[in-house]
Amino acid sequence: MPELIYETVVTTVSPAGEVHVAPMGARYVGDLVLLMPFRPSTTLANIEMTGRAVLNLITDVRVFAGCVTGRKLWPTVELAPLGTDPADTAARTAPADRRLACSLGHVQLRLVEQVDDTQRPLLRLRRAATAQTGVFQGMNRAQAAVVEAAVLVSRLHMLPRAKLESEWAWLQIAIDKTAGPSELEAWGWLDDALRRHLDKLDNPASTAPASAPTPSLPATP
Amino acid sequence: MPELIYETVVTTVSPAGEVHVAPMGARYVGDLVLLMPFRPSTTLANIEMTGRAVLNLITDVRVFAGCVTGRKLWPTVELAPLGTDPADTAARTAPADRRLACSLGHVQLRLVEQVDDTQRPLLRLRRAATAQTGVFQGMNRAQAAVVEAAVLVSRLHMLPRAKLESEWAWLQIAIDKTAGPSELEAWGWLDDALRRHLDKLDNPASTAPASAPTPSLPATP
Repeated sequence: MPELIYETVVTTVSPAGEVHVAPMGARYVGDLVLLMPFRPSTTLANIEMTGRAVLNLITDVRVFAGCVTGRKLWPTVELAPLGTDPADTAARTAPADRRLACSLGHVQLRLVEQVDDTQRPLLRLRRAATAQTGVFQGMNRAQAAVVEAAVLVSRLHMLPRAKLESEWAWLQIAIDKTAGPSELEAWGWLDDALRRHLDKLDNPASTAPASAPTPSLPATP
Repeated sequence: MPELIYETVVTTVSPAGEVHVAPMGARYVGDLVLLMPFRPSTTLANIEMTGRAVLNLITDVRVFAGCVTGRKLWPTVELAPLGTDPADTAARTAPADRRLACSLGHVQLRLVEQVDDTQRPLLRLRRAATAQTGVFQGMNRAQAAVVEAAVLVSRLHMLPRAKLESEWAWLQIAIDKTAGPSELEAWGWLDDALRRHLDKLDNPASTAPASAPTPSLPATP
């Protein structure tokens, strides 16, 4: 049976209270949520230390585009403790869960089992609490194009120039026809990253700074 | 200000009670929903006759794939009358609104204004009632790929073969990586339609039937 993979955002909090935001594919198998974070990664370290994570279901694709272009600080909201949850009682010292402010729905996850791997451990987590905080407005081709472009930007150095340019031109069609302001902002960040990459290919000895832009806290919608 | 266009499904009912299901782009401007159905079309005729439509927000992309491949019969659910609605009182003889059984949310629409056009009149409709009936599970690249493929299939005769084949190969990646059973079923219908089209290009004198498959009522998830 093929398993659908959702494009979600996982928020975790370190024992010291630092919030981390990471786009991640998630599978739903029975009542469990399966994640495969890379080793090493902040998400994996936080889940290993606290046993907790929050799965965010979003359509504000600026989070996907931002996280692959150096914009990793997104507004979050603290969630009330789950008083009746044995795992929470055991880990009472862990900081409270946090969800993305822009999420339409979220799931508070608790680690059940970890199948270790040197590159991508498989984490099985149970749904300790679920909530809807926004209304799904419908599918949008521009949002999907931003997700595809974010995937391309995360793999710029693995893809031939011709493939990048032809796929970008195709994605641009959905942006031009169906994007709103949030999608255009997200597309702009990704387009800048693509142009910088292509410029570097054209001018390998260029002295232009190659680093990502300074992370900033984008406005929420 | 760019306006986001959502990919939705509009359900309408004729005065005689016949349900019609049509994928349609929708814009949300202020409190109104804007639709631009083609003239002539069953959706336009039904809205002109009854003043009503239901906007369905879905992620079951089999409806999009089905409607462009001859599968236009989808399970619907009757909605209770809006007793306090003056428009409903005025049009008391119109059949009840119906939503798609698979919708995550729906909006009961009432026609406010029609800006006529020989090809695509602009309909402004107000939201008489809104409801959530399902939970948004997250974005999925395969669902988006099905929507893009449905757009391509609806334009097969306008697109060069090389473009069709290269874009299809790219969409197939998201299908292979992230599809569940519903997305694979939808993709299969679209892939059949593409193959039939390419076969006809290869064998223009072929006697194979060129018609769409017999409409069938697909199983709901």
